[in-house]
Amino acid sequence: MKVKIGNEIKNYQSICWSTKGFINVIDQRKLPFSFEVFTARNVEETCFAIKEMVVRGAPLIGVTAANGLVLAAKSCEDKEFEEFNNILVSAANELSKTRPTAVDLFNSIQRIMKIVNKNESVRENIANIKKEAENLRLETIEECRLIGEYGNQLIKNGNRIMTICNAGALATVDIGTALAPIRKAHSDGKEITVYVNETRPRLQGARLTAWELYHEDIEHYIITDNSAGHIIKNGLIDLVIVGADRIVLNGDVANKIGTYTLSVLCKENKIPFYVAAPISTFDTTTRSGKDITIEERDGKEVRTALSVNNEQDPEPKRRTIHHSLSPNLNPAFDVTPSKNITGIITPKGILEQPLEKSITMLLENSK
Amino acid sequence: MKVKIGNEIKNYQSICWSTKGFINVIDQRKLPFSFEVFTARNVEETCFAIKEMVVRGAPLIGVTAANGLVLAAKSCEDKEFEEFNNILVSAANELSKTRPTAVDLFNSIQRIMKIVNKNESVRENIANIKKEAENLRLETIEECRLIGEYGNQLIKNGNRIMTICNAGALATVDIGTALAPIRKAHSDGKEITVYVNETRPRLQGARLTAWELYHEDIEHYIITDNSAGHIIKNGLIDLVIVGADRIVLNGDVANKIGTYTLSVLCKENKIPFYVAAPISTFDTTTRSGKDITIEERDGKEVRTALSVNNEQDPEPKRRTIHHSLSPNLNPAFDVTPSKNITGIITPKGILEQPLEKSITMLLENSK
Repeated sequence: MKVKIGNEIKNYQSICWSTKGFINVIDQRKLPFSFEVFTARNVEETCFAIKEMVVRGAPLIGVTAANGLVLAAKSCEDKEFEEFNNILVSAANELSKTRPTAVDLFNSIQRIMKIVNKNESVRENIANIKKEAENLRLETIEECRLIGEYGNQLIKNGNRIMTICNAGALATVDIGTALAPIRKAHSDGKEITVYVNETRPRLQGARLTAWELYHEDIEHYIITDNSAGHIIKNGLIDLVIVGADRIVLNGDVANKIGTYTLSVLCKENKIPFYVAAPISTFDTTTRSGKDITIEERDGKEVRTALSVNNEQDPEPKRRTIHHSLSPNLNPAFDVTPSKNITGIITPKGILEQPLEKSITMLLENSK
Repeated sequence: MKVKIGNEIKNYQSICWSTKGFINVIDQRKLPFSFEVFTARNVEETCFAIKEMVVRGAPLIGVTAANGLVLAAKSCEDKEFEEFNNILVSAANELSKTRPTAVDLFNSIQRIMKIVNKNESVRENIANIKKEAENLRLETIEECRLIGEYGNQLIKNGNRIMTICNAGALATVDIGTALAPIRKAHSDGKEITVYVNETRPRLQGARLTAWELYHEDIEHYIITDNSAGHIIKNGLIDLVIVGADRIVLNGDVANKIGTYTLSVLCKENKIPFYVAAPISTFDTTTRSGKDITIEERDGKEVRTALSVNNEQDPEPKRRTIHHSLSPNLNPAFDVTPSKNITGIITPKGILEQPLEKSITMLLENSK
């Protein structure tokens, strides 16, 4: 992704290896006020990065967990296979417990754990795991590129597109899911405008999506989540594209809290509502959205917002905006029913209704 | 309204006269972190209080403007009628320009200006204006009490009620509109739970409604506006009650941004959606919601949130939560179409569908 630093434009990825062999990620807790890199040197720090949302976004969580397993593996160079395997299994367990909703986490961990082979040396196993994690990282970029190609076909010159949360380069490794078609349309010279829901409580739309769009020079407005209905009703939006944390077999989609509301607003106002996701976001074992665990996060996230005193003093701090006299509820995701979704933009094409059938075919072809 | 101060419970109204004959209002910009009284000594300060949202809420804006005209009138004790009248007309003009959407403002100003009588002395005119403004203030309280009586009939023991923004005592003089049935149900011993949408950008739900409910000991949760859909879909809400800034002849309702979205979510999930309002909120000259001016406020309100460093250091300050690299849109209200509304709770009973017909009858009977 492009990042303007002074007069220069640099290219960054959300996650890469440091020269010392540690995991480097962009620290998303401090954007847009401060651009910092966070380094995870072991599994514990990788778990911290996922749980505390230094990284977030389903595909990026998956890649980060895979890289966490690489760190676990590399710590075992001198170990026998059994101990190596025990340490990996324990690391996989710890990583699995960090966030419950994004299925990429579990899919990535499974993918890495599947290649562990007791008939090979520990050294060979480590090399295989490193390669598989890097393959996952590079495939994620390629899948996002393809989502951009397919999704771009939905966007006409002059279109106004709404999104929520951040399904951009910062939610993946680069390019993004929902933002991939937007980036591609823009680089093809289409004039587009993006309406970004700020996405309370953590403001990923305002802090991360708007930050990406600014650095790409894509016209955009940040709106309160409350304004989406008014703006859609007044004919200001041509289509909505959102990301996904989990897509189950019947086409129900878990995504950032507020997504379901957008889908209902689109249905009411006859606006196309698209979900964009890589293959790793499909949950091949869950039938319906009713069976998805929705993460309930600490009410403190709702009671606070990241703020700076002013932009000249850009050290961001979470400060209290609601009084603790009143309790908060904080569901982090919601489930959009399959029937509210116009289509799902994947690296293998756009899935259309009936989604249950299209998903079955996609998963058959992806085996 | 009850306010717990230490071990004491005191009774307050949102607006009253100070001993020196100035307007005293609760400063709503600083709640819930700091409870302060703001004094308006002249028309200019009254305009400031409305424009800068020291006071807000359609009925309270109306009462404040009427009291502002009292201040203008009282400043003319030694003047001839013509000068007195000119000063009043100019004050009415200034007050009219403070906020465009709430119709109570215009209705109240009109009501006061209508009693100015050139056949009476300036002194008599001042006395009449004072009396009429105080009548309006007291009628507002009585209307809210009646809204509570009627609305309470909709609430069953155990009900879970959702609201947005603040349509409470702080939006009126006392008791409130949407909160009137909730207060009445609670004082009748019904067990109820209120889900309060925080209401970005100014967080009137989290800051004001939750504050009122806390002081009344009514069980409640503050949620992000993004969570409303998830919570309604999951069957946690029995009915929604909101206030109104303007109700036009066909039953369309302008209210705080986000209200339209709630109405669509209720329609989708078959949950009753009620509006509560006094007679002064009905706009007898506008046919349809399309003709309502929607106030577009400064984008800075979206880019900032009132926060405190911690509750021990409760001096609230508006701090930046979005980077100014990205522009914001800030429509302050939206229009809920008549067809999405189950009924309107008024001091004269509950208006049912077809609302256009019920409103015509209500206004006929209120002449």
